[in-house]
Amino acid sequence: MRRPPVRRGRGLRTGSGASPEVLNLLLVRDQEWQDDDTIAVTGDRARHLFEVLECRPGDDIRVGKPNGFLGRGRILAADRSEVRVACRFDAPPPPARRLELLMAVPRPKVLGRVVEQAVSLGVSRLHLLRAWFVEKSYLKCDLLNHPERMEERVWRGLEVSGRTHVPEVLIHPLFRPFVEDDLDRHLGKGGGRFLAHPGSETPLGRVPLPAEGVLALAIGPERGWTAFEVELLTAHGFQAVSLGDGVLRVETAAVAGLALLAAADASRS
Amino acid sequence: MRRPPVRRGRGLRTGSGASPEVLNLLLVRDQEWQDDDTIAVTGDRARHLFEVLECRPGDDIRVGKPNGFLGRGRILAADRSEVRVACRFDAPPPPARRLELLMAVPRPKVLGRVVEQAVSLGVSRLHLLRAWFVEKSYLKCDLLNHPERMEERVWRGLEVSGRTHVPEVLIHPLFRPFVEDDLDRHLGKGGGRFLAHPGSETPLGRVPLPAEGVLALAIGPERGWTAFEVELLTAHGFQAVSLGDGVLRVETAAVAGLALLAAADASRS
Repeated sequence: MRRPPVRRGRGLRTGSGASPEVLNLLLVRDQEWQDDDTIAVTGDRARHLFEVLECRPGDDIRVGKPNGFLGRGRILAADRSEVRVACRFDAPPPPARRLELLMAVPRPKVLGRVVEQAVSLGVSRLHLLRAWFVEKSYLKCDLLNHPERMEERVWRGLEVSGRTHVPEVLIHPLFRPFVEDDLDRHLGKGGGRFLAHPGSETPLGRVPLPAEGVLALAIGPERGWTAFEVELLTAHGFQAVSLGDGVLRVETAAVAGLALLAAADASRS
Repeated sequence: MRRPPVRRGRGLRTGSGASPEVLNLLLVRDQEWQDDDTIAVTGDRARHLFEVLECRPGDDIRVGKPNGFLGRGRILAADRSEVRVACRFDAPPPPARRLELLMAVPRPKVLGRVVEQAVSLGVSRLHLLRAWFVEKSYLKCDLLNHPERMEERVWRGLEVSGRTHVPEVLIHPLFRPFVEDDLDRHLGKGGGRFLAHPGSETPLGRVPLPAEGVLALAIGPERGWTAFEVELLTAHGFQAVSLGDGVLRVETAAVAGLALLAAADASRS
């Protein structure tokens, strides 16, 4: 077995050598535009491009416009403080999905990971809820109180998966008012609303999906929803579904549930 | 909204207060048996039961026998060094699945999480492979060199999900000899073999599954399989499938892939 050449441009690689992080896309930040098709990347991102990915003039990389097209970037100049790239955007991104995830705020260590994973699976919007069994301290975590850090995780999910549709992340600190007063405004009429529930007999993969509207999936806290919360969600159109025959941790349930819902929706059309 | 009572016995709770870990099952270790139906839990597990879950004489908890039945345990005596439980095993566990995961060894931080998640989704066996883009250092990690630590992660996955079938974890440090010489012996004839591949046009959820034999899913390293590895796996019966329209990280792909395969298999029967 011969060592294959490392194909640069196939995957943008970022992060330290010990913990490589594959990026499949460089998503252009607003402030990086120099003119209509040239960008200048600076700071940590420039250092990554130059030192870790070893981008050099003449190399091609994959680029994307937030909420826009994918394309190719040709490196014009590169050093550790600035990398200039000529971009051409000509390919449509994977289509925007109609998936919204409603998730009880998990513990901080898990939150960032789940956000990134949900984004890579194509959620169009992420609602983070305070439920009864969500510990108060979780709401004080960095990620929920520094929008720029949350945005970083969202963008990382996009850059890993090669998507460009930037999902919104909304935080709802009051469960009941959110469900009673705001839910319909956020999710719209029609669509499908599902509640992951280990006790349910209805597999998520087998529920009929409506042709139009948002598909919303609700994932409870590690210790479960309360009976009151389940009743309130059910009264507002959520159908209990099962993700399999075992109980799953929050992060496993979120990924499994979104994958099943996305696949069911894709096979419907 | 009134605070609901915390229902003890609904979920066994372990871990520190700051990072609660829900257990749905106490899986009995060999050395804990006192007689046919009494166990004595000692050490860290006893402290957890007593201090964190606040188990007291008379309380009921969920128990399980490795590779055996589920049941109820009644606490007979409890202090921080020993908890004695009278067990009755009378309920069949979720059925053993026919899912095997072949995964290129991910970086150490990710490995333990993926093992736990894969176990909670019901894999019956886990093969960890050395592929070209697996860094050498990954094979020196603690989890791969201390079987008792790996076992701990496996058991945690079982205790979270309420399963009792203990999956094997096998490490194959030589890719080509494993695929060419050992694969058929491990996976048997028949069954289905799938290779998660972002470029594939065939969604995993839509491939026809055989009625008998093992269902194997192969997940590559973060930087991908080499062309040679894909060819070798394909030559040995693996069909490239897609898990969706974006590229996924290893841990997201493993969870999404297993969830889709398990759901497809469940809806087949």
